[in-house]
Amino acid sequence: MSGTKQLQSSFDRAVADGFVDASRKLEGLPGYLGVVFVDFQPGRLRAEMEVRPELLTPFGNMHGGVLAALCDHVLGCVCYPHMTRGQWAATTEFKLNYLAPVSKGQVVVEAEIIAMTRATAVVRIEARNGDRLACIAQGTVLIRDPKE
Amino acid sequence: MSGTKQLQSSFDRAVADGFVDASRKLEGLPGYLGVVFVDFQPGRLRAEMEVRPELLTPFGNMHGGVLAALCDHVLGCVCYPHMTRGQWAATTEFKLNYLAPVSKGQVVVEAEIIAMTRATAVVRIEARNGDRLACIAQGTVLIRDPKE
Amino acid sequence: MSGTKQLQSSFDRAVADGFVDASRKLEGLPGYLGVVFVDFQPGRLRAEMEVRPELLTPFGNMHGGVLAALCDHVLGCVCYPHMTRGQWAATTEFKLNYLAPVSKGQVVVEAEIIAMTRATAVVRIEARNGDRLACIAQGTVLIRDPKE
Amino acid sequence: MSGTKQLQSSFDRAVADGFVDASRKLEGLPGYLGVVFVDFQPGRLRAEMEVRPELLTPFGNMHGGVLAALCDHVLGCVCYPHMTRGQWAATTEFKLNYLAPVSKGQVVVEAEIIAMTRATAVVRIEARNGDRLACIAQGTVLIRDPKE
Repeated sequence: MSGTKQLQSSFDRAVADGFVDASRKLEGLPGYLGVVFVDFQPGRLRAEMEVRPELLTPFGNMHGGVLAALCDHVLGCVCYPHMTRGQWAATTEFKLNYLAPVSKGQVVVEAEIIAMTRATAVVRIEARNGDRLACIAQGTVLIRDPKE
Repeated sequence: MSGTKQLQSSFDRAVADGFVDASRKLEGLPGYLGVVFVDFQPGRLRAEMEVRPELLTPFGNMHGGVLAALCDHVLGCVCYPHMTRGQWAATTEFKLNYLAPVSKGQVVVEAEIIAMTRATAVVRIEARNGDRLACIAQGTVLIRDPKE
Repeated sequence: MSGTKQLQSSFDRAVADGFVDASRKLEGLPGYLGVVFVDFQPGRLRAEMEVRPELLTPFGNMHGGVLAALCDHVLGCVCYPHMTRGQWAATTEFKLNYLAPVSKGQVVVEAEIIAMTRATAVVRIEARNGDRLACIAQGTVLIRDPKE
Repeated sequence: MSGTKQLQSSFDRAVADGFVDASRKLEGLPGYLGVVFVDFQPGRLRAEMEVRPELLTPFGNMHGGVLAALCDHVLGCVCYPHMTRGQWAATTEFKLNYLAPVSKGQVVVEAEIIAMTRATAVVRIEARNGDRLACIAQGTVLIRDPKE
């Protein structure tokens, strides 16, 4: 990636650690999905979730909306350690392709910042289930200053 | 839309009614989100959900993943009344643009089949919150025959 | 569309007319494709092109890249009459679905601004060939101030 | 990538070589753009093009439609050496994010098959200009049997 050096220097480890800790007690949608952040590196975030029976459709596959929500979630979160404290990340758009149905086990999702400026970031995502890719995504985050 | 006539004739009202009824007792992800189908017409589906505090992020806006999951959900469901019973709809890809933050009230989402063949459908979606568009999306559904 | 009123009042007819005129002598990629702007309205642009044999692939269908380039082109151009003179529109992302092959006749493409702020616009596009939709697209434009 | 082995064994070097040769005398849109295929490997295709002044907009940047057309072109072509002769590849959808403006030099585009079945392939693309990423894309190809 062009900009790797810049991501190295802008990475705030304390913010990353705070996100990892917080993800263990998350409420709301990420809590319902059971998304846990397991590793933050400059420009990268890895998250995991268990495929609970409750998340399956009547056809026995995990609801696609779970992966969509998961992608949306990591898209924004991967940016925080590279932002000024107080700023917030708003996903403005993303696109995903589903590659294989998921029915059990764990989903491991990796988000990678492909390009980042002060106002915007483009992120690419891969979600795996066992040794198979379950979906890939790419999208844009707008970085906004604190609301007054 | 080209194909409107075809959507009129292929529309199975009983299947549509079954989906509307089922959406009122949905479990799993759609149940957690509180998505209720309120109107099915040939090629169209309207669904609604309430913005519960639990679905907001710490910044006070509804988690984008809720809209993403919602879009994924209606993308597939709008096709069922036009499919042969036993077939299932698998969303293979979609893309969405977030247009305005949502913080309260109701989200009303409309899905419209733009093109449909026996094996595939392309669907466009608009989600509104009050009088504002919250997001727009478009994506593809593959229609699959029953697993043996 | 929310924001219709705003698009009415921000529309600069002289800029629109200038684009229509310029499109008749365009060089570069739009000239090669033969894209002509035929109607500009607040928030809307209609363009047309002829399907020349040169644009077909060896399989007899028009190269998909023609529609992709066409979508990219109108995505940015539809915004200009709503921008301050000197600003420029940069497409930052878009997504398209091809719905039917095109092999002859004319392609008519309609771009519509779905949401617009001072810094960004989201645009939806439909391209038709005869009475069939050939592709639909949606994407984002960043509006930038003049380079110094 | 899951499926690497399968891509190794399904790769038809003679077809790949034929595409490379043909790209040197291409007519139509790829010829206008000046796209030349420089390397075909299992699941991968690298193509190059020169940024000619004719492809720039009045703002001095290469028209985004050039990159869009380029992505569409390699999306389908990367699949051919893995298909049965006589079949054809139809791009059904793709999405791209522009990351940096291009104004001179060369564009090098790499397409990689991320997942492939007998009927469909999902492909990811990166286009570079010098040491900068110019755009990334992902999309879907349908593989069709010969028209009778």
